[in-house]
Amino acid sequence: MSLQEGPPAAPDATTSESPGTERLLAFSDGVFAIAITLLVLDLRPPESKHGLLTGLLDLWPHYLSYVFSFVIIGIIWAQHHFIFRQIHRSDHVFLLINLLFLMWIVFLPFPTSILAEYLNYPHDQQTATSVYIGTFFVGVIPFNLLWRYAASDNRLLAHDMDPRVVSKITRSYNLGPVLYLVDFALTFISVPASLIVFGLLALFYAVAPLPIFDRIWKGV
Amino acid sequence: MSLQEGPPAAPDATTSESPGTERLLAFSDGVFAIAITLLVLDLRPPESKHGLLTGLLDLWPHYLSYVFSFVIIGIIWAQHHFIFRQIHRSDHVFLLINLLFLMWIVFLPFPTSILAEYLNYPHDQQTATSVYIGTFFVGVIPFNLLWRYAASDNRLLAHDMDPRVVSKITRSYNLGPVLYLVDFALTFISVPASLIVFGLLALFYAVAPLPIFDRIWKGV
Amino acid sequence: MSLQEGPPAAPDATTSESPGTERLLAFSDGVFAIAITLLVLDLRPPESKHGLLTGLLDLWPHYLSYVFSFVIIGIIWAQHHFIFRQIHRSDHVFLLINLLFLMWIVFLPFPTSILAEYLNYPHDQQTATSVYIGTFFVGVIPFNLLWRYAASDNRLLAHDMDPRVVSKITRSYNLGPVLYLVDFALTFISVPASLIVFGLLALFYAVAPLPIFDRIWKGV
Amino acid sequence: MSLQEGPPAAPDATTSESPGTERLLAFSDGVFAIAITLLVLDLRPPESKHGLLTGLLDLWPHYLSYVFSFVIIGIIWAQHHFIFRQIHRSDHVFLLINLLFLMWIVFLPFPTSILAEYLNYPHDQQTATSVYIGTFFVGVIPFNLLWRYAASDNRLLAHDMDPRVVSKITRSYNLGPVLYLVDFALTFISVPASLIVFGLLALFYAVAPLPIFDRIWKGV
Repeated sequence: MSLQEGPPAAPDATTSESPGTERLLAFSDGVFAIAITLLVLDLRPPESKHGLLTGLLDLWPHYLSYVFSFVIIGIIWAQHHFIFRQIHRSDHVFLLINLLFLMWIVFLPFPTSILAEYLNYPHDQQTATSVYIGTFFVGVIPFNLLWRYAASDNRLLAHDMDPRVVSKITRSYNLGPVLYLVDFALTFISVPASLIVFGLLALFYAVAPLPIFDRIWKGV
Repeated sequence: MSLQEGPPAAPDATTSESPGTERLLAFSDGVFAIAITLLVLDLRPPESKHGLLTGLLDLWPHYLSYVFSFVIIGIIWAQHHFIFRQIHRSDHVFLLINLLFLMWIVFLPFPTSILAEYLNYPHDQQTATSVYIGTFFVGVIPFNLLWRYAASDNRLLAHDMDPRVVSKITRSYNLGPVLYLVDFALTFISVPASLIVFGLLALFYAVAPLPIFDRIWKGV
Repeated sequence: MSLQEGPPAAPDATTSESPGTERLLAFSDGVFAIAITLLVLDLRPPESKHGLLTGLLDLWPHYLSYVFSFVIIGIIWAQHHFIFRQIHRSDHVFLLINLLFLMWIVFLPFPTSILAEYLNYPHDQQTATSVYIGTFFVGVIPFNLLWRYAASDNRLLAHDMDPRVVSKITRSYNLGPVLYLVDFALTFISVPASLIVFGLLALFYAVAPLPIFDRIWKGV
Repeated sequence: MSLQEGPPAAPDATTSESPGTERLLAFSDGVFAIAITLLVLDLRPPESKHGLLTGLLDLWPHYLSYVFSFVIIGIIWAQHHFIFRQIHRSDHVFLLINLLFLMWIVFLPFPTSILAEYLNYPHDQQTATSVYIGTFFVGVIPFNLLWRYAASDNRLLAHDMDPRVVSKITRSYNLGPVLYLVDFALTFISVPASLIVFGLLALFYAVAPLPIFDRIWKGV
């Protein structure tokens, strides 16, 4: 055995063109679609000791976390697509960052289960909520990395992209980490308040791209 | 932290063209395919206290709800495609409505499990059936929203689409909510009757697009 | 409410061209990929009362049924693709037959679980094997329907397709139902023999398309 | 019944062109995306006898095996794509080898579960680790087969591909089996050491294709 054999698939060993982002995006889309669909596996028919209807109503933390996670993953999917529409090339570092990002997306059903399971238990609801919201804070990091790596020095963007637009998008992504960190801190003060803020954040990110808010964002 | 950073990905911040519906449809297809396949997870090998064959026959509510949900999701998939074939553009509101619609599609294995589990329990079978059929009634709403948003003022349709065809499709979608609401009400009167009607509705929606019925729909 | 509203999406109500088979195939591929991957959910870490290694070895019926079902679904996927390569158009009946076929594909992990769970139980192994092999016999029917509907009167095939080739393919599909029916009958005589024949059938269908056998098929 | 009916879909019976690798790759991508996403199903909310936080921390073997398997499957996916970019044609043998390879990919969540479950049990942790790392060693075989079958005699590659590049890639794939075999042997000596080596191997395969290492691979 000799190191001369080298690593597999070093880019210089390939004769084909550097691939675009199509397959990377298709693979990511598949992972998104599956992760978002697996959320339903948390919803199981309840025991019906006091009747099925009571059992179903008692599952409200499961419905809440299902809706929260579904909406957020859906919005992140849309944002991920927005980023990939600006990006015209790919490289190995970008592939690795995207893999890190997907590792986080696939992880999301787990804190969702935790929140669903423990939101009703006084002793553990704070831990469950901290883990849940903290996970979303953590995920902002690989997401920001994806964009910043692609955008710095116009590395993977269209060559004629307006630098002012690029820096505007970059600035807009600064907001997320701060908001989610604040909400994470809030879980230690008040669980209900942190979840209400979390829902408002989801709503904000869902509706912010609507044209109706264009003037507001331009005015500030 | 300043609001000047604005929201992420406001459309005015992008340089690329407004995307078509291809990726939205591909993502939706993935979600459909996974949700329809997860239905099998409800089918688990039975205990065999009285022999495996008896155990398998006792699972009949599971087979029934599997077939019902599979056929209906399959037909909804076909209808979703039909809508998207008419639609040539997309916007953020449409994306959000489609997300709402997918949240309902992903939810469907849950009421399917409930029906499978409780159809054999006299005390809870009515609740289970009401929840099952009620869920399909609720789902008609985002489905209709999808079409109506795209079609009103010819917002996202082909520019040369015949307004008479558009309004004919719109009218045809008025029928569903009414039929499912009636069937939902029927669950409070007779569970078997409501399930038979549900099966007939599925059959109706499956075969209605067949050319053989063209003359009937034109005649009425 | 009046029937004048008609059924949703009757083909005559659409302005767009009759769709090709691309989306139908992409959806089917997604369902195939998920159904084949869900097979792994049957493989769970064993209890380790007598050590993990013993526990793992005791799972052999699970490995056997995993390999059987994976190979067969893989071959059916390849055959499904072969059919779709000959087919250039689609219609609503074809869509419904394909849906029926997919309902069977999605169902397959269930008899696979049954075989895995009960192959080691003397009282139930015959039932489990009959259900398993019987399911594959049943599935040949929608598969044959798919091809025969598309091929009869050259309904959905390429217009210039050689009728002799078409009828050769049709004849080749006659063999499957007979072979699986014989193997199904064999489960009532000897479970091990029927499983060996089942494995040989899978092998036969896997290697039969190899060029090396061309002369044999031509000679007979 | 006569053998004259022949096997289904013998290649000589088709009128359409030999298919490219697109659909094979799309199907493989779907299987990869699902297998990598199913890894999260191992992460279940813990019992909270000593508090949820303690329960979550006790799950560390689950997090470790999740990260390991996710990164490795991600890298294998990238390598699989690299191979397919060199390959311009497909044939039935190649399809079968790819099916064998996918059967191994789909299997991976099972040894991942075993490692997660038993890493904390002194009596079984060595067996669990041997099974886990041994599985990855086994998987190198179908992966190498894929490339070697396609590359030998330039069977499925681009016609103008440089033979020196081909043999360089072939040599680079010789390293993997040896490294994983050594690490498999190491599990019998020291479980922690073998897992550290496993992590380093994953890291090595993740970063090896980076341009920064080009000179190193060229120098050796």
